Amino acid sequence: MDHKRGLRVAEEYQSLQTRACTIVEQAEETTKFDHNEWNKEIGSGNSAVLQEGKKIEKAAINFSKVSGVYTEEMAKSAGMKPGKFFATGISSILHPRSPMVPIIHMNVRYFELEDGASWFGGGIDLTPHYIDKKEAAWFHQQLKTVCDRFDLSYYPDYKKQADDYFFLSHRNETRGVGGIFFDHLQPKNNEDFEKLLSFTKALAKLYPELYAAILKNKSELPFTEREKQWQSLRRGRYVEFNLLHDRGTKFGLDSGGNTESILLSMPPMAIWKYQFEPEPGSAERETLNGLKKEIDWIHQK
Amino acid sequence: MDHKRGLRVAEEYQSLQTRACTIVEQAEETTKFDHNEWNKEIGSGNSAVLQEGKKIEKAAINFSKVSGVYTEEMAKSAGMKPGKFFATGISSILHPRSPMVPIIHMNVRYFELEDGASWFGGGIDLTPHYIDKKEAAWFHQQLKTVCDRFDLSYYPDYKKQADDYFFLSHRNETRGVGGIFFDHLQPKNNEDFEKLLSFTKALAKLYPELYAAILKNKSELPFTEREKQWQSLRRGRYVEFNLLHDRGTKFGLDSGGNTESILLSMPPMAIWKYQFEPEPGSAERETLNGLKKEIDWIHQK
Repeated sequence: MDHKRGLRVAEEYQSLQTRACTIVEQAEETTKFDHNEWNKEIGSGNSAVLQEGKKIEKAAINFSKVSGVYTEEMAKSAGMKPGKFFATGISSILHPRSPMVPIIHMNVRYFELEDGASWFGGGIDLTPHYIDKKEAAWFHQQLKTVCDRFDLSYYPDYKKQADDYFFLSHRNETRGVGGIFFDHLQPKNNEDFEKLLSFTKALAKLYPELYAAILKNKSELPFTEREKQWQSLRRGRYVEFNLLHDRGTKFGLDSGGNTESILLSMPPMAIWKYQFEPEPGSAERETLNGLKKEIDWIHQK
Repeated sequence: MDHKRGLRVAEEYQSLQTRACTIVEQAEETTKFDHNEWNKEIGSGNSAVLQEGKKIEKAAINFSKVSGVYTEEMAKSAGMKPGKFFATGISSILHPRSPMVPIIHMNVRYFELEDGASWFGGGIDLTPHYIDKKEAAWFHQQLKTVCDRFDLSYYPDYKKQADDYFFLSHRNETRGVGGIFFDHLQPKNNEDFEKLLSFTKALAKLYPELYAAILKNKSELPFTEREKQWQSLRRGRYVEFNLLHDRGTKFGLDSGGNTESILLSMPPMAIWKYQFEPEPGSAERETLNGLKKEIDWIHQK
């Protein structure tokens, strides 16, 4: 396998990982990322981890570049053919300290198979502990603006895919207010490859800027013990999504990836309470009511 | 489908659930179980939940009796035929308050398919936050004594199956010191059915007695903040096992079971720390060293 294209994508993604770390560090103010290089049989990567900052309790911005064998089982669950693969991507989750600040997640990835097939995938989604409709509208508008620069069909299509993907079927609730999600975007030609690469790069650029703006807006808001407890409960849901439903986590663990890097998606702490039901009319109940598919966040009242 | 046998098993299991609650309540001393009856399309159950006791932080002893359709996908992953099924069982996990006390889990279950096939499954396993070799030897000896009353092949076979089942492949570590695990024990005739039913009943009887003895032994031991933190980290592993690997959890959620009851297996609280490595020679390191398959706990030095 000749990964000339793949290696170029990897290089560009890696420099965007560095850029994202810089922007998030500036927004966080006090704490820097530790960069953990890793090398395993499957490939290499750099896990940038920030723990116990002033505004951010745990942040991971991972870059990886791996190659291996897509087993029959893995191929089936992904709707692909088995064979050798090359994959590179950035994957990031930021867990804020304050319950008033949302969790954010971004992933962009590029795959190549030995038969020459290749595709891009990725997404950005926002998981507020407390839904703020204005913030959700702004967030979706930012994503739409970037999408529209590339293709007017992207935002509506990928917004819908995010609703379907970031969904806890066992809870019948979405993970948060969604965002965009796409997979298996196969370039038809060179020009198309450049367009898709630029699109994923634009998202990886937007991501830290979005979060810096949110942190600036929300980090200083006061909060109570009750709000902190609700944050811990919502983090429990985040754990459930990542371990039960997330395809990237499953693919990573099944393909022999770096477990500690993959599970950087876990929150620093989570709690579970049996049949916890927020009171009618409470902010927590309002948030649960908003965890639904097909909400037009940009135009919602 | 005529569930005459299944309904009898359900009745016997339900009375053992009640018995287990009584014994655990006596050992816990201050806090009682809440009994939560539930009825869904798929069937009914009783989730007995004890939260924030003196010795037990969270305990669940669930009984359920459900029927539904084994889809092709579920059938494949279980090595079974698709079709209507009836299932009943007790499933329990006890999370102690003290890090010096282990987590324990027990499950016994009975399945019937519409073509007349039926089988028993189950197991008991112990997950110490700190491995105590004497306790592990005693625990395994207790299981062996019950197994031996039914069949001398049971303990060695099912001990090995527990090693393989209660295993976090992504961490290359066992969940704890194991125990026994068995599945698809299909009765060949009436006599065999009675033997297998008695075997699973004997395990459901033994279970609360084991834990009452452990609580008596260990609940009053002093512990530090460091030991409490280690407990929270090990609880994170427990979450990972249950959501990534446990077939019962997956079957329950996939078949439309009662999510809140199924996820009673979650600990009250868990933490994750990136690349946490206990110091060489520490009790935490010793515990990690013991999380391996094929340890003969009864005879180990």
